Amino acid sequence: MLTFGCPDRTGIIARISGFLADHGGMIAEAAYHTDPDSGWFFTRQVVRADSLPFDAAGLRERFGEVANELSAESSWQVRDTGERPRAVVLVSKAGHCLYDLLGRVASGELDVDIAAVIGNHDSLADITRAHGIPFHHVPFPAGDPEGKAAAFAKVRELVDAHDPHAIVLARFMQVLPADLCTEWAGRALNIHHSFLPSFIGAKPYHQAHTRGVKLVGATCHYVTADLDAGPIIEQDVIRVDHGDSVQDMVRKGRDIEKVTLARGLRWHLEGRVLVHGNRTMVL
Amino acid sequence: MLTFGCPDRTGIIARISGFLADHGGMIAEAAYHTDPDSGWFFTRQVVRADSLPFDAAGLRERFGEVANELSAESSWQVRDTGERPRAVVLVSKAGHCLYDLLGRVASGELDVDIAAVIGNHDSLADITRAHGIPFHHVPFPAGDPEGKAAAFAKVRELVDAHDPHAIVLARFMQVLPADLCTEWAGRALNIHHSFLPSFIGAKPYHQAHTRGVKLVGATCHYVTADLDAGPIIEQDVIRVDHGDSVQDMVRKGRDIEKVTLARGLRWHLEGRVLVHGNRTMVL
Amino acid sequence: MLTFGCPDRTGIIARISGFLADHGGMIAEAAYHTDPDSGWFFTRQVVRADSLPFDAAGLRERFGEVANELSAESSWQVRDTGERPRAVVLVSKAGHCLYDLLGRVASGELDVDIAAVIGNHDSLADITRAHGIPFHHVPFPAGDPEGKAAAFAKVRELVDAHDPHAIVLARFMQVLPADLCTEWAGRALNIHHSFLPSFIGAKPYHQAHTRGVKLVGATCHYVTADLDAGPIIEQDVIRVDHGDSVQDMVRKGRDIEKVTLARGLRWHLEGRVLVHGNRTMVL
Amino acid sequence: MLTFGCPDRTGIIARISGFLADHGGMIAEAAYHTDPDSGWFFTRQVVRADSLPFDAAGLRERFGEVANELSAESSWQVRDTGERPRAVVLVSKAGHCLYDLLGRVASGELDVDIAAVIGNHDSLADITRAHGIPFHHVPFPAGDPEGKAAAFAKVRELVDAHDPHAIVLARFMQVLPADLCTEWAGRALNIHHSFLPSFIGAKPYHQAHTRGVKLVGATCHYVTADLDAGPIIEQDVIRVDHGDSVQDMVRKGRDIEKVTLARGLRWHLEGRVLVHGNRTMVL
Repeated sequence: MLTFGCPDRTGIIARISGFLADHGGMIAEAAYHTDPDSGWFFTRQVVRADSLPFDAAGLRERFGEVANELSAESSWQVRDTGERPRAVVLVSKAGHCLYDLLGRVASGELDVDIAAVIGNHDSLADITRAHGIPFHHVPFPAGDPEGKAAAFAKVRELVDAHDPHAIVLARFMQVLPADLCTEWAGRALNIHHSFLPSFIGAKPYHQAHTRGVKLVGATCHYVTADLDAGPIIEQDVIRVDHGDSVQDMVRKGRDIEKVTLARGLRWHLEGRVLVHGNRTMVL
Repeated sequence: MLTFGCPDRTGIIARISGFLADHGGMIAEAAYHTDPDSGWFFTRQVVRADSLPFDAAGLRERFGEVANELSAESSWQVRDTGERPRAVVLVSKAGHCLYDLLGRVASGELDVDIAAVIGNHDSLADITRAHGIPFHHVPFPAGDPEGKAAAFAKVRELVDAHDPHAIVLARFMQVLPADLCTEWAGRALNIHHSFLPSFIGAKPYHQAHTRGVKLVGATCHYVTADLDAGPIIEQDVIRVDHGDSVQDMVRKGRDIEKVTLARGLRWHLEGRVLVHGNRTMVL
Repeated sequence: MLTFGCPDRTGIIARISGFLADHGGMIAEAAYHTDPDSGWFFTRQVVRADSLPFDAAGLRERFGEVANELSAESSWQVRDTGERPRAVVLVSKAGHCLYDLLGRVASGELDVDIAAVIGNHDSLADITRAHGIPFHHVPFPAGDPEGKAAAFAKVRELVDAHDPHAIVLARFMQVLPADLCTEWAGRALNIHHSFLPSFIGAKPYHQAHTRGVKLVGATCHYVTADLDAGPIIEQDVIRVDHGDSVQDMVRKGRDIEKVTLARGLRWHLEGRVLVHGNRTMVL
Repeated sequence: MLTFGCPDRTGIIARISGFLADHGGMIAEAAYHTDPDSGWFFTRQVVRADSLPFDAAGLRERFGEVANELSAESSWQVRDTGERPRAVVLVSKAGHCLYDLLGRVASGELDVDIAAVIGNHDSLADITRAHGIPFHHVPFPAGDPEGKAAAFAKVRELVDAHDPHAIVLARFMQVLPADLCTEWAGRALNIHHSFLPSFIGAKPYHQAHTRGVKLVGATCHYVTADLDAGPIIEQDVIRVDHGDSVQDMVRKGRDIEKVTLARGLRWHLEGRVLVHGNRTMVL
């Protein structure tokens, strides 16, 4: 799989597809997008490995020349989709997103190894282990900045041990420190329980109830140092009405949260999500 | 049609339905809602006029006693649905909401007399008159506060001449002054072209494009002095993606704006929308 | 909780709410519906147990008189919502609906005891038992009518042992025999993986792909002897496009199936679903 | 604009994009799709006219060689998007789709000339003419096959006089004879008021009400001799509930019908809809 971005100009597709055709590359899937605002061109191509005379590393080496010619600089990559991706999931007490992810992996729907689950509470340890996945309990002491920093250092160590393709904040209720946001940039996905940019921050369903909205939503986005403001991968909404209490909204919202997170994670793992500035393209 | 709200207690439904049954009133439609947050009870009842031994005024008089007993104070009303409601529509240049309303009225779907259309531009005069409806052009001079105040005085006069049940801001791009918000409270409906509270104020589609959201929306709400913060009647959304320019979002959003406005207006005209604080109940 | 249906006439609400008010009954939730086609009236009322001077049995006895007066015959019931309902789930190989139900119960979202899971395959035994729920494997021999009949007899015995409020066919791929449909009428819920009445019968996603539809759906309905034709409780759809293979449709459809089933089951357990003829009212 | 389909093989994109790049062609928009079921490859490319050294006819001539090489036979075309497309609209009594189309054209949203509107009733003549568009009234005598045939001959003559890019059946309640289906194949669009293949034929909302579905829908499809079975271009649905009468369903469904038709028509006019067998690709 090749993902690629460069400043737009005439002949890019011809150059890339010509390069692949010259080596007998059979394109299984291809998507292209030109962003008129930024003047950039983006593409994602899935090439059948057995149609090429070299492996992923060989393709990477040879394609480098094409990339330079097109001024792509570092905004391209080649990935071997034969390698099964790894994810680490961070949770707190609320289990609906974790249950959902575990079920999708167990039923073969989501093609990822969940290497570990880390919780600041241990209420989800049993179900995690029932799926044969290690669970690490890392308590976050409230009102103790040093204790929190130590806890985050522990989380970082546990996560980095797996060098994961995705770090999934599945209703993890702690705000990542800036250095982790930077280190995990483009790999850490959060699910926020509102239709961002509505109701940033804490207790979005309470905010939604007070405002009297008629739909509640969820947003899957990359984590950045700016809270709830990272590039949005996917969003969805569900209808509520005046008869719904905050608790009803919470319950209805859960169905949207877990589906939105699973969709965003799938696209991320499949390399479909390209980020440019603060916007994503899902190719 | 009777709409009614009072502090919740035991026996309200029994009292109201007993009163109606005692007079032979046949209930064609009834909805009830108890709001646990405010501790208020609300109901909307449609009673067949020919099943009662008195007219709307008679019902109003006799029911007053029940209302007092239940401490409803002024939060109830009786309306004769035999009287066709009147609306005045305020527009600017964008015609999609007006075209849609005119089409709905002409085809008999929306049961309302559009008494007049008032525009700060005259681009929609012809289509309005083709439907046999008077169009008034009231220019709003840019950057001239006195001229604007005079224009609003003219609009007020034109609107109030019809004593309308609904004043519809169908993409009218001027902010109503506070005194008009007060005078028309509960009768003036606006369609805002975003999923409020996201993207309050000007150019919401531009804001949405910049933020990279995956859905755009529209909100029909009562106009209050606090811009875009009035009680929400109805909202809806439509999916957009990275390939959509601001102009594409504007176009897709229009289909949601006109449908959301029409739905909100219908419910308002049918007396289904009860307001309590800054939230609506649609019964 | 009182659910009630009777031929429509003047004064029903007054009679019922008067009866409750006379005994001090505090109505926590009430919904009413009059069906103009059949001329029937329906209501569901949740009354606070501690506001009444008698228990569920006492209410049932006293209310019988009111019911007779209103010609409700057998179409009413009183249920003590203090008693936690029981469900038995029937599955085959596909686990997405079961995983989802187990997760909802474990997280306290769905208020039901899953008394047992019965599968014609044993692939879902481990996850079921990890939740502390008994799993029974009842193989269904293909092409052996007698073996099938024996298997159904076994299933019936296992199910009836729990006298469940709901028998949930969570992608159980066997067609229930007519006698079980009758015995479990109004208690057996199925999730069909299409937007019925489109694509009745086997392999609906294949049918949908062949027809080139742009949305796929799911339908939660009561099981009747007429295959996929029982009263519909809930339906939902999700968008697909020309790029989606049958397998993609299957995957996207799963998210709709599990949510639609969970919603239908919740309403059923809360006594919100009233059936009249082949249609449901969800009050 | 170039639309193109051919049997899939290695190097198609390289060949086409190489051809365009050799002539300096600047691609404004490009979409590709490979259909694994049929083994065909499809693409739609919008090339900036001023970047090419020849006009549409010149491109057509030169590209023919590439098309032959790739065995595309007749399944490709080049269209000059500078030429504004023409449509003829067929209507009956229901005006919601026509009002909507006229409003979209008048507000500049839909880029098409409506050359004429033809109705088997004359109730929509005034609004059509108010938009400066000719209206032709062609009565269809009920129960008179010869009279009907003569009426269709008249319709054909009126339509063909404009050689339209689209013939839009905007709730035209007459079934086109087979010869017109053939002559207008790929140009005649119908809006069916159900989520096909549910509720084929007459009175779909009545069928939907009887079946007790929880969503109603609309389908925009190409007209073929097989009633309501042509290739689907677009579909959408809207939620209904037990409280909705057939008339409510009709009203709610209208909002979906007009939006679905407008979306399908737009894609058709933009050359985005490629048909293969009985399925469409919307590129």
